[in-house]
Amino acid sequence: MTDVLRIGVVGVGIMGADHAERLARRTAGARLVAVADPDEVRAKELAGRFDGVRSGGDALELIAAEDVDAVILASPGSVHEEQVLACLAAGKPVLCEKPLTMDSESSLRLVQADREVRGRLGRSLVQVGFMRRFDPEYSQLRSVLAGGTLGRTLLLHNVHRNASVPHADFRSEMIVRDSLVHEIDVARFLFGEEVVAIQVMSPAPTTHASPGVVDPQVAIFTMAGGGLVTNEVFVNSQVGYEVRCEAVAERGSVVIGRPSAGLYSATLAADGSGQWGGTVPADYRTRFATAYDLEVQSWVDSALRGESVGPSVWDGYAATAVSSAGMTSLATGERVTVDLVDPLTLSPNASSTKEPS
Amino acid sequence: MTDVLRIGVVGVGIMGADHAERLARRTAGARLVAVADPDEVRAKELAGRFDGVRSGGDALELIAAEDVDAVILASPGSVHEEQVLACLAAGKPVLCEKPLTMDSESSLRLVQADREVRGRLGRSLVQVGFMRRFDPEYSQLRSVLAGGTLGRTLLLHNVHRNASVPHADFRSEMIVRDSLVHEIDVARFLFGEEVVAIQVMSPAPTTHASPGVVDPQVAIFTMAGGGLVTNEVFVNSQVGYEVRCEAVAERGSVVIGRPSAGLYSATLAADGSGQWGGTVPADYRTRFATAYDLEVQSWVDSALRGESVGPSVWDGYAATAVSSAGMTSLATGERVTVDLVDPLTLSPNASSTKEPS
Amino acid sequence: MTDVLRIGVVGVGIMGADHAERLARRTAGARLVAVADPDEVRAKELAGRFDGVRSGGDALELIAAEDVDAVILASPGSVHEEQVLACLAAGKPVLCEKPLTMDSESSLRLVQADREVRGRLGRSLVQVGFMRRFDPEYSQLRSVLAGGTLGRTLLLHNVHRNASVPHADFRSEMIVRDSLVHEIDVARFLFGEEVVAIQVMSPAPTTHASPGVVDPQVAIFTMAGGGLVTNEVFVNSQVGYEVRCEAVAERGSVVIGRPSAGLYSATLAADGSGQWGGTVPADYRTRFATAYDLEVQSWVDSALRGESVGPSVWDGYAATAVSSAGMTSLATGERVTVDLVDPLTLSPNASSTKEPS
Amino acid sequence: MTDVLRIGVVGVGIMGADHAERLARRTAGARLVAVADPDEVRAKELAGRFDGVRSGGDALELIAAEDVDAVILASPGSVHEEQVLACLAAGKPVLCEKPLTMDSESSLRLVQADREVRGRLGRSLVQVGFMRRFDPEYSQLRSVLAGGTLGRTLLLHNVHRNASVPHADFRSEMIVRDSLVHEIDVARFLFGEEVVAIQVMSPAPTTHASPGVVDPQVAIFTMAGGGLVTNEVFVNSQVGYEVRCEAVAERGSVVIGRPSAGLYSATLAADGSGQWGGTVPADYRTRFATAYDLEVQSWVDSALRGESVGPSVWDGYAATAVSSAGMTSLATGERVTVDLVDPLTLSPNASSTKEPS
Repeated sequence: MTDVLRIGVVGVGIMGADHAERLARRTAGARLVAVADPDEVRAKELAGRFDGVRSGGDALELIAAEDVDAVILASPGSVHEEQVLACLAAGKPVLCEKPLTMDSESSLRLVQADREVRGRLGRSLVQVGFMRRFDPEYSQLRSVLAGGTLGRTLLLHNVHRNASVPHADFRSEMIVRDSLVHEIDVARFLFGEEVVAIQVMSPAPTTHASPGVVDPQVAIFTMAGGGLVTNEVFVNSQVGYEVRCEAVAERGSVVIGRPSAGLYSATLAADGSGQWGGTVPADYRTRFATAYDLEVQSWVDSALRGESVGPSVWDGYAATAVSSAGMTSLATGERVTVDLVDPLTLSPNASSTKEPS
Repeated sequence: MTDVLRIGVVGVGIMGADHAERLARRTAGARLVAVADPDEVRAKELAGRFDGVRSGGDALELIAAEDVDAVILASPGSVHEEQVLACLAAGKPVLCEKPLTMDSESSLRLVQADREVRGRLGRSLVQVGFMRRFDPEYSQLRSVLAGGTLGRTLLLHNVHRNASVPHADFRSEMIVRDSLVHEIDVARFLFGEEVVAIQVMSPAPTTHASPGVVDPQVAIFTMAGGGLVTNEVFVNSQVGYEVRCEAVAERGSVVIGRPSAGLYSATLAADGSGQWGGTVPADYRTRFATAYDLEVQSWVDSALRGESVGPSVWDGYAATAVSSAGMTSLATGERVTVDLVDPLTLSPNASSTKEPS
Repeated sequence: MTDVLRIGVVGVGIMGADHAERLARRTAGARLVAVADPDEVRAKELAGRFDGVRSGGDALELIAAEDVDAVILASPGSVHEEQVLACLAAGKPVLCEKPLTMDSESSLRLVQADREVRGRLGRSLVQVGFMRRFDPEYSQLRSVLAGGTLGRTLLLHNVHRNASVPHADFRSEMIVRDSLVHEIDVARFLFGEEVVAIQVMSPAPTTHASPGVVDPQVAIFTMAGGGLVTNEVFVNSQVGYEVRCEAVAERGSVVIGRPSAGLYSATLAADGSGQWGGTVPADYRTRFATAYDLEVQSWVDSALRGESVGPSVWDGYAATAVSSAGMTSLATGERVTVDLVDPLTLSPNASSTKEPS
Repeated sequence: MTDVLRIGVVGVGIMGADHAERLARRTAGARLVAVADPDEVRAKELAGRFDGVRSGGDALELIAAEDVDAVILASPGSVHEEQVLACLAAGKPVLCEKPLTMDSESSLRLVQADREVRGRLGRSLVQVGFMRRFDPEYSQLRSVLAGGTLGRTLLLHNVHRNASVPHADFRSEMIVRDSLVHEIDVARFLFGEEVVAIQVMSPAPTTHASPGVVDPQVAIFTMAGGGLVTNEVFVNSQVGYEVRCEAVAERGSVVIGRPSAGLYSATLAADGSGQWGGTVPADYRTRFATAYDLEVQSWVDSALRGESVGPSVWDGYAATAVSSAGMTSLATGERVTVDLVDPLTLSPNASSTKEPS
């Protein structure tokens, strides 16, 4: 491979367009060569923003193309299995947006397929888009906890709020599958342990959610070592994008995600009082801009070196398995046990966050 | 009654001594006249710090004394029932530290006794020492939530940490009964609703707790209207006294209890970096100094006016009932329903935080 | 003297009414007995809010009254000299609001008069109303700096903002005399040294000030030991009351007065973003509520003990001398030296913040 | 020009090595091809960290090399004039670290030379390394102030602290020339006006500075429109790297540079109290990492487009002129007027921050 990685992007929605911009403008060693989407008009519009980028409607064609060295999948989760398998067949590194797939069975199949490839190539080809691991705050928090000066980690408290979500076709399960899944990966990343049980509780919902939608939700994870994680996910909070995490350890706690940008004093009120404060970003692209940049730069760098360093297909499978259990719990209110399976023996596995070997 | 309230303090431990100081030095309209404790030496030592204050060993004698207009009980919860009943019999206002009593049956008996007095005098004589209701931050939070501009309250997230607790004879239940009970009252105060169920979870404990003690604990309250409350109580956090509360409503959230005092930059590290920050107070007397002052001033003012305004004996009973259910849940891990009882009909009551009438 | 201090308040403007409330409702050991103001209607209205408090139009009559043990002067600075002298003649403790007087000559005369009284009674009778010394944050900052762990203090940066001031008859000098005077006392208090020079600079003014008024102002103090103090005073900032102080020492810095109360996230903006923040108090009565309470409680306590502990008449004289120099500097833009005078010898004195003896 | 900019770096000290890393690893469209430094050993060591990068001892040779499209100067200010002129002669874009040159006369010569080039090429070739303009916080602050919702800007308060500086050969003037120069550019950038006068004050110095060195320093800038800027520069603060700026406008103020990363609670003190806080970065490379990345990416992008968008040679000249006046003021303590000169007519110019044309 040369010193430039020629990349195709599959999916041209918000996330795909964002990745295309990133590759074309801000990533060293990357060259965006093609985009593909069933909506060919939109794909063409996106390609037209850059010099020398072609567009098409067929993801598999893009994946197979000779001038495409590596692929970013920003397509819907329901087509990830087929597309990741195509990348594996072509021997091309793929960065697959979360969720890896829509159920744990298909995710497990990808674990098995990637293992087969790894046996041949000596390295994995799949990285899953859990970009928070590249966020400087989450990354620093992990270092602090792993460093051990605060002792063993006991609890996490996660808060995850979106101002609003589209109402059409929105279902309560999506909160678990698309939002809570990030907190699942965060818990695994920070504890360095699997989630062994999940309970999703349904408070009286906000009137800003669609009728029948449970929002906010409160979820409790039990970690393999006995730690607990509390999670609030609230996707119609009306207030911008807020993601916070507090880790509680034996000799101290750490909070990340506090509002941190400029501090304003302004806005004279009628009684002469004023307000201080700052802005809550509108969405995840602002909050995690640096995380996405670092994620993609790291993926490109490791692909050029022939290595594989980011969140693995196992991480994707584990997160899918927990969120599937979470959807069951959402329906019943009961605590549901998560049983990860060794991809070789299909026997239970929950000892660490590493794929058994 | 005159314009000065002559007050006796029962119990001369940390809390009783603190109240005696407060009455003698910082409370307008109050005069400390007597202290009583079975440990007469300590009682005498405390009385000796002030002019014209006598000491004794017998709480009931102090309560009955002619020159005592009102009483603060800072004695152990196990003797509260007898002492509150004595105050009611003497027709004297009493400020009883929490917990009101050790079980919900005895608390209910006090509700019934106070109701009988109220029938005769037209006012209640018992105020329970839930001082957080007088803390400026909790009080302002309640105003904001009740004001309605943020819409209906959906969730609370409470954090309650002590640096450490004495290890001798300490049992896991004390965390529920003595610490979590404050969060129970906070939830009732902020939601304006009863707690109808409680689940207490047991994470893997810190090594700084005594063997066998579950610390930290995570508790979930379900409110009558469907709201949820998450609570962390951690009494060996090694880091000073931290009490925080975040309320999440339909159109915004509010956090109180953030560290707020002076901001330091200091401490050159080996690599040239430094630290910024401030101090976490050692204990509740610092954190809630203003709350205690306002609580006692308000109690004295209302006693002089012949009124009764603070947290009631019903609030004390409700909190005891929830914490009793919490202790059951702590043992089983299961969610336990709380059944408050109408003191007249003994039928279930959970409609609001007011005593049924 | 008994265990209750009977107090008269002279001046029934905002500050006088505030002190009257404080004495009547929140100060242990104090009894408000009389208020006096040339505006007898307003004085009567104020007295009528309390039981057993009389009103009158003559300050000197109030000061002389047999049932008045001590006096708070909340009258205009222009009548302070006469009224303080009357208190000294009557041998009664007086808490005199700042400024002590309108020029340094008259302030020096009060230093001399109080010294004469002190010779006879063994204690001073005058406390000047620099309430910030009682503010928990300023008080803690002073302790930190005096404690020495941060090394010698090098710089202070003060910010002092009011939302607005009445425009009628407002002149630029009032910013120096009535607002900056607090920063002068703060500098002396925190450094433990006299201010030896002052320079007041005139930036292009805000359009919210009256025509011809210099607002904001930037003032630089030189301390006796060579330290420098930068000050912003801005009395039409449109944003509520903000008072901050940063002390820079040899091994660290400390900021006080940061916004600290509840943290809100609210207010959905059109683009989906939100705001976090809190409230800036409308005026000094909110910001320094605790400071005023502690100031008056301390003054009452020390008066009952026959002692004198707060900011002295010397502190009042020194502040007046510096603010007088500041008004000269405001007119010329030049740095003006401050020459304090030993009240006995009338020779220069700038060695410390203590009155020479 | 192609789609890759081949870049040479002159100077391999901390800043040069940092830029080399940035070009080689994190900048899209850039290729590091050569480094040069009189210390050829060090240059070789740096080049050896990357594939295909050569090193040499002669800056002018590097600048003239055929495979070098553009140059970053991280050499000492004393050789900038010659090297910038060489870049102009070769028609190559140059990013010159601050200070542009060591005195205003030489800087003015560069303004004139660049103007001549601009006449021929239609664009400037020189960008000066005032990277703070690319810092997200400074950039956002500029947008807020320029947006006008807060009204006219009245004051800036800047704080600039380094933990320590090397003591050998350090002189007080370096604080003005190397540190304060950033604040000069910030003032011009945020006000959009020239600095017309500067006064540098000398407080009693810290004992951590070398004997004879004035540290900290307090500087006051007067802007062309009458605004004032207060500056603290303290290069032996013992506490890491702190850069803050508060802008005060007619209807509100904005603070940037507050400590913002993770919030810790830790460190049990002997009395049971704890500490909260976070880390102050060790130096400017951490604090302004993003600013440097954005600066260089923007410079590369604009060079590839044949444009010139960053801080200009005029900005470099203006900053040098003000810092020169500042060094005079440091010596005398007096306010010194700054007279910028129109490079064509050599008549005074201070109307805006744009080079007269």
